[in-house]
Amino acid sequence: MRGVMLHAPGDVRVEEIDDPKITAPTDAIIRLSATCVCGSDLWPFRGADPVDQPMPMGHEYVGIVEEVGNEVTTVKPGQFVVGSFVASDGTCEICRSGYPSSCAHRVFMSLVGTQSERALIPHADGTLVATPGMPDTDMIPSLLAASDVLGTGWFGAVAAEAGPGKTVAVVGDGAVGLLAVLAARQLGAERIIAMSRHEPRQALAREFGATDIVTERGDNGVAKVKELTGGLGAHSVVEAVGTQESMHQAMRSTRPGGHVGFVGVNHDVTLSGEELFFSQIHLLGGPAPVRRFLPDLIQLIWDKKINPGKVFDLALPLDQAAEAYRAMDERRAVKALLTV
Amino acid sequence: MRGVMLHAPGDVRVEEIDDPKITAPTDAIIRLSATCVCGSDLWPFRGADPVDQPMPMGHEYVGIVEEVGNEVTTVKPGQFVVGSFVASDGTCEICRSGYPSSCAHRVFMSLVGTQSERALIPHADGTLVATPGMPDTDMIPSLLAASDVLGTGWFGAVAAEAGPGKTVAVVGDGAVGLLAVLAARQLGAERIIAMSRHEPRQALAREFGATDIVTERGDNGVAKVKELTGGLGAHSVVEAVGTQESMHQAMRSTRPGGHVGFVGVNHDVTLSGEELFFSQIHLLGGPAPVRRFLPDLIQLIWDKKINPGKVFDLALPLDQAAEAYRAMDERRAVKALLTV
Repeated sequence: MRGVMLHAPGDVRVEEIDDPKITAPTDAIIRLSATCVCGSDLWPFRGADPVDQPMPMGHEYVGIVEEVGNEVTTVKPGQFVVGSFVASDGTCEICRSGYPSSCAHRVFMSLVGTQSERALIPHADGTLVATPGMPDTDMIPSLLAASDVLGTGWFGAVAAEAGPGKTVAVVGDGAVGLLAVLAARQLGAERIIAMSRHEPRQALAREFGATDIVTERGDNGVAKVKELTGGLGAHSVVEAVGTQESMHQAMRSTRPGGHVGFVGVNHDVTLSGEELFFSQIHLLGGPAPVRRFLPDLIQLIWDKKINPGKVFDLALPLDQAAEAYRAMDERRAVKALLTV
Repeated sequence: MRGVMLHAPGDVRVEEIDDPKITAPTDAIIRLSATCVCGSDLWPFRGADPVDQPMPMGHEYVGIVEEVGNEVTTVKPGQFVVGSFVASDGTCEICRSGYPSSCAHRVFMSLVGTQSERALIPHADGTLVATPGMPDTDMIPSLLAASDVLGTGWFGAVAAEAGPGKTVAVVGDGAVGLLAVLAARQLGAERIIAMSRHEPRQALAREFGATDIVTERGDNGVAKVKELTGGLGAHSVVEAVGTQESMHQAMRSTRPGGHVGFVGVNHDVTLSGEELFFSQIHLLGGPAPVRRFLPDLIQLIWDKKINPGKVFDLALPLDQAAEAYRAMDERRAVKALLTV
C-alpha cells in the first residue's frame, strides 16, 4: 500500500510500504477515508525532533473497519470509525479514571503511522468509536478533526475549566487553538479571547465563538488580557502552542486560582517553581484523552451542532502529502486534509 | 514592646521595637497570646533568603483584639482571634473566589512580623476570625496552628483533591506535612502514605491518620509509592518541603490524572514542561488561602475533633526565640511555640 514516510527533515515521500497485519486479538485494520497533517508532525519535519531513520507519519484517522482480531467486540468490518491518536486498552485503572492517553498499555499512533491507505489500530475496543451510520462525504473532515485536533482543543478547554460565567483566553491560533475556542463556546464560556495576529484565523475564531481578539504577544499579550479582565487575568487559559513563550503567556494571563489547560506538546520548556507557586494557578496538560470525549464529539458532529472540519483549509490527495507539509510549515494552510 | 528581629543569618535577637499603631480604618491591633517559628522563617535564618537589614520575624499568631480601626465590623476589642499569615481584604474578586492569599491587596504578615507582644493586622475583617469564646490555655496551640501550618497542610490536601477512595502521599514530615496527613484523614482519604525517616514524626503521622510510612527518598521513594499503589502512583500527593528533590518526588509519585498540591515555598526549583506534559498530573500550589478554611478549622478545634497543636514539641517564652530557631534549624524540634 502507499504511505507517507519522513526520511529526513523536510523530506516527505509517499511510497510503497507493507500492508498492516493483525498480530494481537485486540487489533483492527481500517481502510482510511481521510487523514491529515498535525502541527506535531511538523516538529520532525522541521528538524526539531530527531529523524534517525525513515519514519511512518500521521496519527489522525477515520475510515472503515476491514478486519478485526477475535477479541474485538465493539466495532466490526464495514463500520465507519473514528479513533484517538493514542490507542488505549479502555480497561486499566487510568483509562477508567478518564485518562486513556496515559493508559498503562497505550500506543502512540504516531509510532504506527496513519498517513497511508490502511492502518493497524491496537486496542480497537478501547480506541475506536463507530459512527451512528455511514457519514456523508461533507461530514468526514469534522469526524477526522475529532480524532485529534478537536479532542485536543476540547481537552484544553476542559482542563482550563472553561464554563458558564468564565472568561477563557486561548494562546495559539492553529487548528487546536481554534477548536479550543469552539469547545469553550460549547462548554458555555461567557467570554472567549482568541490570541491571533492572522486575519483569516481571527475570522474563524470569531465564527467558532470568540468574543475578543488580542493580536499582541508575550508580555504585551498578557497586559492586554489583564486589561480586558479588570486587571486580574482570565479564569481559564488554553495553551495550544508548546513553546517557552506561549507557556509563559498562558500562565501569566491567568488569574490566581484560575486554570491553565496546556495541550501544545512542550518543547524545551522550563517553568520556575517559584513563579508557579506565587501565581497560584491550576495546571493540567498532556496528550489529550480524546477517547473520553469521542462519543459526545461524534454526536455533536452527527447532529450538525458543530462543524470543526472548517479548520481544514487545504485538501490534497495522499500522493501530494509533501505539499501538504510544506503548506502547513509555511503557514499557508491552518490544517491540511489528505484524501485516501 | 519586645519583638524578634533577625539581624543576619543565625542572628536572632529579642529587642525593644516600636508599638504598632492603627494607620488605616481597616486595621486591628492584637495582643499576642502565642506565636511560633515557621519552616519558612528558617530560610532567612539559614541565609537561603537574603537579610539586607534587620527584619521583624514571624507571621503566625493568635491573641486578643486590643483596638480596631473605625471601619472594622467583624471583630472587636476583647475577642480572641485567629488570623491568616496573609492579610486579605476579603472583598475583592480573588478573595471571593476562594484565594484570599492572592488578594489584590494582600499583605504578607511576614513583612509586618508577629513574633512580638503586639501586632498590627491589616484588613482585619478579611483576615481575622473570632473564636466562639475565650479558649482554654491548652487549646491555644491548636488555634495557633490554624493560622498557618494547619491551614497550609489543609490547602495542600484540598489542592491534591484528597478525599474518599483516594490514596494520598505526603512528601515532607515537618509540621505542614504532618498536618496534611491530618487534613487528608479529615477529608476522608482511604489510604495515607507519610514519607518520613524520623521516628517521632512517623509516630505523630500515624496518630494523625497515616496508614503507611515510606522511609525512602527521591527515586527510591517514588518507586516505593508506586509499589504500594499497583504501579500507578498515588491519586493525591502533597508536597510540603519546597526543594527540587521534593517537587520531583511529589510529581513522580502521582498517577496520570492525579493531583499534586504543593505548599512548600519553592526555592530554586525548575520544572520541565515536557515532563509535566507527559506526566498528565494536575498541579496547584502557592501560599495557602488559610482564611477560606479558618471558620471550619476553628470549629473542628473548638469541638475537639482535631488536635493539630500536637505538632508543637517545644514551647519557650518569647525572650528565648533564638533557642527556638536553633532547635528547629537543627531538627531538635518539629515546631516551636513562643508564649508571649
